[in-house]
Amino acid sequence: MTVGLWVNVKLLADLGERMAIQRIAEVLTKGTASSGIGDDCAAIDMGKEYLLVTTDMMYQQTHIPVQMTPFQMGWFLVAINLSDIAAKGGTPLGLVLSFGLPKETSEVFLTQLASGADACAVANGTTIVGGDTKETAEITLCGSAFGTVKKDEFMSRVGTCPGDVVAVTGTLGKAGAGYYALKRHVAENVLSKALLEPTPNLRQGRVLAQQKVITSSMDLSDGLSASLYQLQELNNVGFEIKKSAVPLALQSFELLEKNYRFDPYELALHFGGDYELLVTLPAGRFDAVHNVMAQHGFELTAIGKVTRKKDILLLDGKGKQVLENKGYEHFKKRNF
Amino acid sequence: MTVGLWVNVKLLADLGERMAIQRIAEVLTKGTASSGIGDDCAAIDMGKEYLLVTTDMMYQQTHIPVQMTPFQMGWFLVAINLSDIAAKGGTPLGLVLSFGLPKETSEVFLTQLASGADACAVANGTTIVGGDTKETAEITLCGSAFGTVKKDEFMSRVGTCPGDVVAVTGTLGKAGAGYYALKRHVAENVLSKALLEPTPNLRQGRVLAQQKVITSSMDLSDGLSASLYQLQELNNVGFEIKKSAVPLALQSFELLEKNYRFDPYELALHFGGDYELLVTLPAGRFDAVHNVMAQHGFELTAIGKVTRKKDILLLDGKGKQVLENKGYEHFKKRNF
Repeated sequence: MTVGLWVNVKLLADLGERMAIQRIAEVLTKGTASSGIGDDCAAIDMGKEYLLVTTDMMYQQTHIPVQMTPFQMGWFLVAINLSDIAAKGGTPLGLVLSFGLPKETSEVFLTQLASGADACAVANGTTIVGGDTKETAEITLCGSAFGTVKKDEFMSRVGTCPGDVVAVTGTLGKAGAGYYALKRHVAENVLSKALLEPTPNLRQGRVLAQQKVITSSMDLSDGLSASLYQLQELNNVGFEIKKSAVPLALQSFELLEKNYRFDPYELALHFGGDYELLVTLPAGRFDAVHNVMAQHGFELTAIGKVTRKKDILLLDGKGKQVLENKGYEHFKKRNF
Repeated sequence: MTVGLWVNVKLLADLGERMAIQRIAEVLTKGTASSGIGDDCAAIDMGKEYLLVTTDMMYQQTHIPVQMTPFQMGWFLVAINLSDIAAKGGTPLGLVLSFGLPKETSEVFLTQLASGADACAVANGTTIVGGDTKETAEITLCGSAFGTVKKDEFMSRVGTCPGDVVAVTGTLGKAGAGYYALKRHVAENVLSKALLEPTPNLRQGRVLAQQKVITSSMDLSDGLSASLYQLQELNNVGFEIKKSAVPLALQSFELLEKNYRFDPYELALHFGGDYELLVTLPAGRFDAVHNVMAQHGFELTAIGKVTRKKDILLLDGKGKQVLENKGYEHFKKRNF
C-alpha cells in the first residue's frame, strides 16, 4: 500500500489558476518598493509615479481559436496586456513580446503576427519596443506591457467599502456573442472581432483615474462573476448586482440570432473576454463621474452596490439569489 | 505545376532566430521615445534615465535539460533576464514572470519554480513583482525584467570604433563544461551549476557603466563568436581576437576531465551560456577600467581589438584565420 504517499500530491488541475498564483505569492519575497501580485499590474514606486508592469501569456491549445488569424493573435496579445494598464488608469510606455513558434511557421505568419501586435499598440498610442523569439512545439505568445500613472490616480483592485456603487464601462456579452458566432458559423465580422480583436479601454481608464474617486478597478477579462469574486476576496466585502441594470451587448446578440433563444445574461455575467472595466466608487460621486465619462463619449453604468455581507447576490424580479462564479479559470475545466 | 507557388514560402527553420527578429523589426512602427530592437534591452526615455525592459522565454524541449530542477528553471529564467539589464549597466527594479505549465504539474514543482526565481531575484537585489500562469502542454516560461540606468551610463550594443579594445568579464567555457559534465555524468555540482544556475553580472555591469567609456556592450548568452558577429553587423566593424588571451575557465575544465582531451577553446569561443559581459572601450582607457574592476574584485580581460576591416579573425601561433560563427541560434539546428 503505497497509495498514501500520493494522497497529498496536489496538481495544478486541482489548484486552479488563482490558487496557483496564491501559492507562488506565498513563496515570493515581498519587495519594499512594489505592490501588485493579485492585481492587474505590478506598481513600482518611482517617486511621483508608479511604473506599471503586467504580463500575459497566450497558448495555442487553450487560448487561440482555430479561426484566429496571425494578425489577430498579435493584436490580442497586445490588447490583453494594455487592458491591464487601462484598468489601473495608466498610460502605456511600450511592450516587449516573446513569440514561441514552431520551426515550420512561415515568414508570412511571423510578419502578420508582428503587424497585428504593432497595429494594436499604435492604435493605443504606444509601440512594441523589443522582444524574443524561440522555437516551441506549439504557438506560445507572451507579452509584457509597461506604463506609468500618477500615484494619486492609480486605481488599485483594493480599496472599496460597503455602500460604494459598482459600475462597468461599455456593454457586456460582445465577446461571448463572438464565440458563439464562430461556433455557429455566423458570418458577421463585427461579432468575431469583438472576441478576437478586443479594444483595451485605455482612454476610459484615464478619464476614470483622473476623477480620483475610484475605490477599486479591474478589467473584465475573466467575466463579471469571476471578477466580482476576486474583488470580494481582496476587499472582504460582498456585492448586490441588479440583473436588469447589467448593460447587454444587444446589437451583438441580435446579429448572432434574431429573437435570440440563448440567455443573454449568461454571456454578459459569465463569459468574459469583453475587456471592459469594472470599478467601484462612492455612491455620491457616481453621477458626476458618469457625466464626465459621457462628455468623453464613454458609457459607465451602475449595476449594483458593495455590501458588508460577504455574499455576491443577483437581484431580479424573483428576488435575490447567489451569483454563481462561472468564470473561466485556467488549469480547471471551463464550466460554461 | 503549382510548385512555383511554394518556392518563396520561407519557414522560420530557414530564417533562423536573428533573421526572424529582423523581419519583425521591419514590420514594427518605430516609437519616438524608445530604442532597443536588436539590443539586449529596450531603453525608454524617462528624462534623466532610461527605463530598461527585456524579455526572455524558455521552452522545455529546446532550453530545459532534463537534469534541471524546478528551482533551477526559476533561477535560470530570472538570471537570463537580469543579465540583459546587467549588459546595459542597469539596476533592476523587478521582474514579471509568466509560467506556462501542464495541468499535471505538481504544487511542489510550482513552489520550487517560484522559489528559484525568487532566490535569483533576491540574490541580485530585486524581486518578482507579478506574473501570470497558464495551462500549456509543455513547460514554457517567460520573464520580463525592467530596470533603470542614467542616460550617460547606458551601455548600448552600438558605438564601437576601430582601434577599441575588446574585453570580457570573468572566464569563458564554464557553461560548456557544465553541459559536458551532465552529458558524461560527471558528478561535480559546481560544473552543472555554472550551466543551470548562471550568475547575472549586474555589479560588473554597474562598475563598467560608471566609467562612462564603454563603447558597446552585450552579454555572452549566445557565446563569444556569435556575439562578435552580432556586434560586427550592428557596428559595421571587424574584430581581431587573440586566442591565447581568451580567459579560459580552467578550473571547470580540470574538474570535467584531468588532462582534458577536448578543445577548451571550442567551449570558450562558441558554447555560450556563460552570461559574462563582452564590451569594447577606447584602448587608452582599458588599464584604468581594468584597475577599477580589479578593485571591486572583478576580472576584465582584453582579448583583441576592433578593426576597420569587416572580418572577424582569430590570431594564434599559426597566424590569422576567420573565427567561425558557431553560436547557438534558435530555429536553426545547433551546429556545435
